[in-house]
Amino acid sequence: MPISGFPEWMPPQRMIEQRVIDRARATFELYGYAPLETRSVEPIETLLSKGETSKEVYLLSRLQAEKAEEGQLGLHFDLTVPFARFVTENAGKLQFPFKRYQIQKVWRGERPQEGRYREFLQADIDVVNRGTLPFHYDTEMPLVIGDVLSGLPVPRARIQVNNRKVCEGFYRGLGLAQTDEVLRIIDKLDKIGPNAVKEQLVAKVGATEAQADTCLALADISSEDGSFVDAVRKLGVSDPLLDEGLEELLRVVETARDHAPGLVVAELKIARGLDYYTGTVYETQLEGYERFGSICSGGRYDNLATVGNESFPGVGISIGVSRMLGILFGQQALAVSRSVPTCVVVALPHEELRADCDRTAGALRRRGIPAEVAPTAAKFGKQIQYADKRGIPYVWFPGRDGEPDTVKDIRSGEQVEADAAAWEPPAADLHPVISGS
Amino acid sequence: MPISGFPEWMPPQRMIEQRVIDRARATFELYGYAPLETRSVEPIETLLSKGETSKEVYLLSRLQAEKAEEGQLGLHFDLTVPFARFVTENAGKLQFPFKRYQIQKVWRGERPQEGRYREFLQADIDVVNRGTLPFHYDTEMPLVIGDVLSGLPVPRARIQVNNRKVCEGFYRGLGLAQTDEVLRIIDKLDKIGPNAVKEQLVAKVGATEAQADTCLALADISSEDGSFVDAVRKLGVSDPLLDEGLEELLRVVETARDHAPGLVVAELKIARGLDYYTGTVYETQLEGYERFGSICSGGRYDNLATVGNESFPGVGISIGVSRMLGILFGQQALAVSRSVPTCVVVALPHEELRADCDRTAGALRRRGIPAEVAPTAAKFGKQIQYADKRGIPYVWFPGRDGEPDTVKDIRSGEQVEADAAAWEPPAADLHPVISGS
Repeated sequence: MPISGFPEWMPPQRMIEQRVIDRARATFELYGYAPLETRSVEPIETLLSKGETSKEVYLLSRLQAEKAEEGQLGLHFDLTVPFARFVTENAGKLQFPFKRYQIQKVWRGERPQEGRYREFLQADIDVVNRGTLPFHYDTEMPLVIGDVLSGLPVPRARIQVNNRKVCEGFYRGLGLAQTDEVLRIIDKLDKIGPNAVKEQLVAKVGATEAQADTCLALADISSEDGSFVDAVRKLGVSDPLLDEGLEELLRVVETARDHAPGLVVAELKIARGLDYYTGTVYETQLEGYERFGSICSGGRYDNLATVGNESFPGVGISIGVSRMLGILFGQQALAVSRSVPTCVVVALPHEELRADCDRTAGALRRRGIPAEVAPTAAKFGKQIQYADKRGIPYVWFPGRDGEPDTVKDIRSGEQVEADAAAWEPPAADLHPVISGS
Repeated sequence: MPISGFPEWMPPQRMIEQRVIDRARATFELYGYAPLETRSVEPIETLLSKGETSKEVYLLSRLQAEKAEEGQLGLHFDLTVPFARFVTENAGKLQFPFKRYQIQKVWRGERPQEGRYREFLQADIDVVNRGTLPFHYDTEMPLVIGDVLSGLPVPRARIQVNNRKVCEGFYRGLGLAQTDEVLRIIDKLDKIGPNAVKEQLVAKVGATEAQADTCLALADISSEDGSFVDAVRKLGVSDPLLDEGLEELLRVVETARDHAPGLVVAELKIARGLDYYTGTVYETQLEGYERFGSICSGGRYDNLATVGNESFPGVGISIGVSRMLGILFGQQALAVSRSVPTCVVVALPHEELRADCDRTAGALRRRGIPAEVAPTAAKFGKQIQYADKRGIPYVWFPGRDGEPDTVKDIRSGEQVEADAAAWEPPAADLHPVISGS
């Protein structure tokens, strides 16, 4: 029986997922990120010390533990907290700045809904340094994600960027001291609307109507270029942290504009729920799928990992692979050209000829062409059907009585003489092709 | 803190692991196996209904479950049991025979030791059919594994094959009715030695000394070719199931001999612990690492998956990726040429030139060359050190005042003029190289 929140893709969907993973990995490596996997479990104290996900953690126990277990373990709910733990644990063995990617399952006990799972795949990159981390790594994150997604048949991505320093500095400059609380209320804007946000700002942080309106005016600013800076300045608030934040945000927007125009937009209402972000924050929406929320998020965290008085600031971003694919699969927005990797089925005239047919398939495989011999020496019509049902494009017929072998494209019916040591399918037929729709 | 039994490889080891996974996946796909991932959890009833691993199962619970959970879930301990569940659950949507591969983590609560983990990676292939499954798939398993391992810098693999029908038929023909119990005792041969096995056969299944000796003589038979058949016949036992088993085992040995001489050996003492095997069984040892036991095992299971009166027989084999790598890493038997994917570090003369250097790195990446710009505009000596510490072979120097760019191989010191739109590193330097030692 299916278990709610634990999705299982059929092989065609898994092929699409693998294609996404391959593209992410290749892109991450082009930017110099090294591969890492951390264990799936963490001590419960590590999991509970960060973020707001305590009620979503899955705990582990051994079915027949003979005595009390040493320390309670739980499944990780993201890849950032385990990575921070890994870095501090192995700081002596790592070269800093340390750039790594991590593509793994994570688990959360939250209520399942469309695109929200209890077990799901994330693809993360992070850069961490000892002491301080240069800001330019914040500008790299959207470029990497842009390169990953632009190479996949998915809708166009738009990365929304903001900077907590902008908001915090702005609220402070405006005279509102409880900047965290203001941020939390503004974060609900899309859910509860501007009127309710205004009411809460007045009621909960003692804002005047004018201050609340100015906060809403800030959240309303959005631009693909550097014009957001002027728009903020026009609101007449000044604060050194605001200046720092605006400069940083401008660098992210301008670097991305140079790399891929339209990819990044400064969106000053973006806040991100997680507490550990301290500067840049990212969210990503797919065009036409905005209602499903962000499929790729992250930010700068200067205080997540510390050992004694040494800190390891970082910046990272995470593609919600299962989330993105769940949404696109739900809308039939992705397809694959066949349900198996096989390119050629070698037909089997008699069971006694299996060894010969195996050799033919072997010759094809040695040149990188996925091939399998028919399961039984059924009538050729049935063997062709075996290929057809799976979307396999070619059937190979061993020549008899000294005749040459032939290979048939079962889509067009075209059949030609062929030598297993030399024949090549068109490049587009070699592997299953993923397409958007 | 490290958690016993939950290994974490450093990035160089993870690169080696990825190479193993890539090779396995590419090979599996060449043989037409389709990719699949099942969820990590199964209902506890599913996990406990099969095999002998009940005490090793990890159970899940939600930290703040508000009410009793619907059904208790546990982490899967292998990939065969979840696959059998997946097949019966989705039988109506799958094309049979169904060939799939599955490369995933599994969890067992057993006592950790060298090469034995509580969380580890398995790479499985299985073929399942409705009704009956042709025997030739049993002959394919060793070929696929041979192709995977021969393409990796690991010691030579030797796949030991046996067939439960041989043992069962032989014991029965010999007059010993409790064939399962005989098999279980013989399975302990390597651990307790022939004398203890003989004693137990006499004591537990009522064998005569002569019968026990004949069982030991069967277990002693081993051959790389078909000569094991004569060796068995000489023991003077006859039984129709024995004949069937010998014929099957001979086909496995002869097919493998044709494909890759020396890969497979008929080893009549191999039994495999798991109850669900009904015919062929496989174990695999690496030359020089025999003492660590099997790194790749599997077999034929005719009764694992049934729905009503319909059965789904299968055959499969599983590479213990973590197990194999844990053993080889423990002996420093594998190495990688650098600790990051980066091939070129673009040196940064001044921070103001970062955008130009980013463009140079971008031009290299667009042609598939992993590149990163130096983290800071430190002295060139420090930037070269950044590359050197990570094993990155090349440093790129932007030309100044109209001079052309140059690229330096920091191993040889050779420095040449280069254009980021055209320069190519030698193929061997493009990606980290994995080697045995």
